Amino acid sequence: MRNGTKKNISRYTLSIRHQGWVRSVRSQKEVLFLHINDGSSLENLQVVADPSLGTRDLTFGSAVEVQGKLVKSPHRMQNMELKAETIRVVGPCDTWAFPLKMKERHPLEYVRQFPHLRCRNNTLSSLLRVRSEATAAIHSFFKESGYVHIHTPIITSNDCEGAGELFQIETLNEAKEPAEKNHFFDVPAFLTVSGQLHLEVMAGAFTHVFTFGPTFRAENSQSRRHLAEFYMVEAELSFTESLQDIMQVMEDLFKTATSTVLSKCPHDVELFHKYIAPAQKGRLEQMLKKRFVTITYSEAVEILKQASQAFTFKPEWGCDLQTEHEKYLVKHCGEVPLFVINYPYDLKPFYMRDNEDGPQHTVAAVDLLVPGIGELCGGSLREERLPFIESRLQRLGLADAYQWYLDLRKFGSVPHGGFGMGFERYLQYILGVDNIKDVIPFPRFSHSCLL
Amino acid sequence: MRNGTKKNISRYTLSIRHQGWVRSVRSQKEVLFLHINDGSSLENLQVVADPSLGTRDLTFGSAVEVQGKLVKSPHRMQNMELKAETIRVVGPCDTWAFPLKMKERHPLEYVRQFPHLRCRNNTLSSLLRVRSEATAAIHSFFKESGYVHIHTPIITSNDCEGAGELFQIETLNEAKEPAEKNHFFDVPAFLTVSGQLHLEVMAGAFTHVFTFGPTFRAENSQSRRHLAEFYMVEAELSFTESLQDIMQVMEDLFKTATSTVLSKCPHDVELFHKYIAPAQKGRLEQMLKKRFVTITYSEAVEILKQASQAFTFKPEWGCDLQTEHEKYLVKHCGEVPLFVINYPYDLKPFYMRDNEDGPQHTVAAVDLLVPGIGELCGGSLREERLPFIESRLQRLGLADAYQWYLDLRKFGSVPHGGFGMGFERYLQYILGVDNIKDVIPFPRFSHSCLL
Repeated sequence: MRNGTKKNISRYTLSIRHQGWVRSVRSQKEVLFLHINDGSSLENLQVVADPSLGTRDLTFGSAVEVQGKLVKSPHRMQNMELKAETIRVVGPCDTWAFPLKMKERHPLEYVRQFPHLRCRNNTLSSLLRVRSEATAAIHSFFKESGYVHIHTPIITSNDCEGAGELFQIETLNEAKEPAEKNHFFDVPAFLTVSGQLHLEVMAGAFTHVFTFGPTFRAENSQSRRHLAEFYMVEAELSFTESLQDIMQVMEDLFKTATSTVLSKCPHDVELFHKYIAPAQKGRLEQMLKKRFVTITYSEAVEILKQASQAFTFKPEWGCDLQTEHEKYLVKHCGEVPLFVINYPYDLKPFYMRDNEDGPQHTVAAVDLLVPGIGELCGGSLREERLPFIESRLQRLGLADAYQWYLDLRKFGSVPHGGFGMGFERYLQYILGVDNIKDVIPFPRFSHSCLL
Repeated sequence: MRNGTKKNISRYTLSIRHQGWVRSVRSQKEVLFLHINDGSSLENLQVVADPSLGTRDLTFGSAVEVQGKLVKSPHRMQNMELKAETIRVVGPCDTWAFPLKMKERHPLEYVRQFPHLRCRNNTLSSLLRVRSEATAAIHSFFKESGYVHIHTPIITSNDCEGAGELFQIETLNEAKEPAEKNHFFDVPAFLTVSGQLHLEVMAGAFTHVFTFGPTFRAENSQSRRHLAEFYMVEAELSFTESLQDIMQVMEDLFKTATSTVLSKCPHDVELFHKYIAPAQKGRLEQMLKKRFVTITYSEAVEILKQASQAFTFKPEWGCDLQTEHEKYLVKHCGEVPLFVINYPYDLKPFYMRDNEDGPQHTVAAVDLLVPGIGELCGGSLREERLPFIESRLQRLGLADAYQWYLDLRKFGSVPHGGFGMGFERYLQYILGVDNIKDVIPFPRFSHSCLL
């Protein structure tokens, strides 16, 4: 009720005009009760009015403007109520056609069908407030730690990473006659899958940089963990030779953002922990007090090999950890966030730093696994040594395409590293939301791009 | 010099390790002087060393780590200098091949050719710090005013606005065989040109919302004012029937962000006002003290008709204002930011609110024009009345495509309005940068998508 309330102090009572949407109407013989919500919090303002002020238009979902006096409420559940002098229905609501119903707790799958109306549902409006608060907390965390914010590009001509899952961009003319030579940018252009390589450019001039923007994967998946358009928080630190430094920032970011959300949106978070994920209740506060656990990839494989559980994919050094493995590891380590470090060299992208160990050859990579979600963040030290990165790119046949990336190592190269955190997965984790489609305002996934 | 500096207080002097990139090397018989920059500000740290600590690798552009004692400098121009005990070249720089040269003030057009290296140039690193600070200031402004931040979608199926300038999205498979039925999303999908319609969805549940993200136009233009990918700040306010309310937020946003940038990055701004746009010096501070001016479109046309200046496009009621007209109007009104309101109904998009005036039929639209740039912001009240918007969409043949938008007016519609500000134009204006390609880290425009 923070906004939309214009105050005007009279001698003894506060005369205000309050605006919002009707969440409930209860008409008794002597008195009319309304609950009005203006979106600034879950809390409604109770309006008490003479039944004569009621009209047929005053229904659930309608937009109203109430003029009256703010008085102390006789009810224990609320501090104040508004004694209405006038009630104006600004925008009526056709309640029969309106898909949301009064006092009904609609399932998330149901409201997902109405992307243009679901923000009027309590669960989604709480989600959007939490998302907004978490966004601000992440920006503040980096700002206060001296990071420079960089808008890494959305459209890119880099196409060498994960080529199958890229979205390509065409102008409408090109789409009609796809002549190779007619590209708007002269070259094929794609939607970014990560801002990392562009952040590495900036890590050659600033010691701390971050980006927080949309990234894209054309994954043909209906999974509850994947979207075609999702947000990533990515950071890059220069002058560090230690993976621990990177992990410390990951842990600090996670804990700072989460404490801020818990303290700024207690009621919104409570709604999720009460109705959506009861098991989550109190777990976050506990987790914030603990240190995250760290194990190496090799230790992880040993733990999995000794597990009594039968896995669909047999754990083996040199193979990717599957979701079933990640879940087991998190459980084994006490259901706390778990860093797994030093992955096999051959499993990871070209830019990760060679640990020069053997015979089990690894790179300085880290994944952060969290209960219920699996991988939340991924990071690494980057290979800053020209001969190492040059020979690796040559073996991959990418040395020409990445000449600019090699340049970064030719001119004042510094040891550096960074990480990315999936913002939607973060929200899923802290709120206990099962389906990623319910933590983003307008979900895009295969076969669906509503609005 | 905020970051990358690890302090360790000894009894009388401060022993530190400082890291950064060499901006100058001056070797004298008795002493070696280095200037080191770590990207946290324009300021360099002066290092004083015994010439024996110098090596061949210690060149302009190389990355170094210096261990030493921070002492009071005997020079008037700086407070402190670092007496080096050890100097380690972390990453050498091949100065012959490096396109940036010591102490040279490279023109912006020159450094633009090296998108992966130009952030190591003073002008561009200043720009990136200002951009980061302005981004933070904009987020803070809205947060402190109670706005909910919304990530409006980048990929959208809305294709009705400005269809010719849209980028379409395809998966790589689709691009190879463009079968209509094979769309990843089942429908054609495009890059967003504005988050407004999606913000209007949110304006049905929250009283104040904003978004700040990338938008796209496939404009085949090499203009100094257009990019294919650029950032927009957009806000939407519910329960307002006054265009003045919207204009007040535009003015407050502009002034708050600008004062913050001026106070947080004085040296970076000064660099621009000294070397790039000398005429700009002091003008911003002046402007911040003044109220923006407001005229109606009809008044603007009268002013233009009475102008002694000859225009290429003859000013006429009902025609768009051209850049030459906008420039004249801003000059006529005293070279201050100028609101032009109430544009002809037939010139503006379907969602703008009908003023129901006549015979010169207008809508409640506003453009903010600024010296040297022209249009910086555009906004309007939105048509919240179902019959008005329905008949307008029907006439345009868009009623079916916008059924969801009509729904917003059927269920608890509220009078609302909002605006968008081009973030790059804003930066161009406050810094006096002529070409928009120089205020974004990785410019994308027709025939160019580097990296």
